[in-house]
Amino acid sequence: MIKHLSVTTRGQGLYDMTAQLAAAVSDAGIGEGLCTLFVQHTSASLIIQENADPAVQADLHNWLNRLVAENDPLYTHTDEGVDDMPAHIKSVLTATSLSIPLVKGQLALGTWQGVYLWEHRHRGSLRRLVVHISE
Amino acid sequence: MIKHLSVTTRGQGLYDMTAQLAAAVSDAGIGEGLCTLFVQHTSASLIIQENADPAVQADLHNWLNRLVAENDPLYTHTDEGVDDMPAHIKSVLTATSLSIPLVKGQLALGTWQGVYLWEHRHRGSLRRLVVHISE
Amino acid sequence: MIKHLSVTTRGQGLYDMTAQLAAAVSDAGIGEGLCTLFVQHTSASLIIQENADPAVQADLHNWLNRLVAENDPLYTHTDEGVDDMPAHIKSVLTATSLSIPLVKGQLALGTWQGVYLWEHRHRGSLRRLVVHISE
Repeated sequence: MIKHLSVTTRGQGLYDMTAQLAAAVSDAGIGEGLCTLFVQHTSASLIIQENADPAVQADLHNWLNRLVAENDPLYTHTDEGVDDMPAHIKSVLTATSLSIPLVKGQLALGTWQGVYLWEHRHRGSLRRLVVHISE
Repeated sequence: MIKHLSVTTRGQGLYDMTAQLAAAVSDAGIGEGLCTLFVQHTSASLIIQENADPAVQADLHNWLNRLVAENDPLYTHTDEGVDDMPAHIKSVLTATSLSIPLVKGQLALGTWQGVYLWEHRHRGSLRRLVVHISE
Repeated sequence: MIKHLSVTTRGQGLYDMTAQLAAAVSDAGIGEGLCTLFVQHTSASLIIQENADPAVQADLHNWLNRLVAENDPLYTHTDEGVDDMPAHIKSVLTATSLSIPLVKGQLALGTWQGVYLWEHRHRGSLRRLVVHISE
């Protein structure tokens, strides 16, 4: 079973997709199975992270922005903006696809786990995702 | 088919889960298929790495500890210990889920590949994992 | 359904596997489903990245080579060459498995997404991959 999801981003940062993904899983009506989330972009990516303290998300964001700096003289791909090449690198260091088992009809996430789309570009954008759900 | 696994960790480092995962696959009795391993935590993660020379694992561990330092003044999430925010970052840079094809009823790992849980906290903990196996 | 693929590499860099993977999917004749690609090595890895400007691939390569330097005094695993321990670290920071949904019988990649094998060793090698395709 395939579902198409989207997230409208308003700039860099983590966007919680857990409820949207849980709804897609609930629609599928499968007891035990596997849910795979795939993002169709190379300047946004996926992570599973702590959903409790927003400071974790801010620190993740700031740490990765420091590791993968803008205006690095190493970059030759510069014509799509100072944030584009860093966005591709950040995408490579995180995930383009995530697979989560389904148990009793629900995503088998741990208590403190949320599913996030990570937007790496400064400008907002419509980000498209494809979900595959099977037994 | 869903199986629940766990690993009791005794501090930071790589814990070889290959035999435990292979046993779960063997129980499933599937010839060709897919095995997905998912860790239900955000301060421990999964990798597939060389299983031959233990120095590889030590170097991985030391390299990542240097890249993601404790007591970084950037961190604002500090109330769960000096190793907690680094653990979340390390989890993001590695994997929360891994999928391994099954061939002739076995994990299709390369000769030198082992499956590891990477504990990023100093204190030991019971780490829970969910395995999905299907044709 | 399992397929075995291989890529002959001629040294470090990104090798576009998109056409080869698309052909395997086409052979499978499945409308909606999931394709999982797995690399059976720990010194080569997988990414999905931009397929338009080759400068992106060059920048990715150069950035990661700077982050994970050769001849780092931290390494103790040095007997397989100066590029071996960096190769293991790079493999951990990228992906060993990737899952891509199938829609209308094709890989549901975004417009600018390509699937790449990333060779991290200087010498060429035959890299083996296993593909699992299911509904």
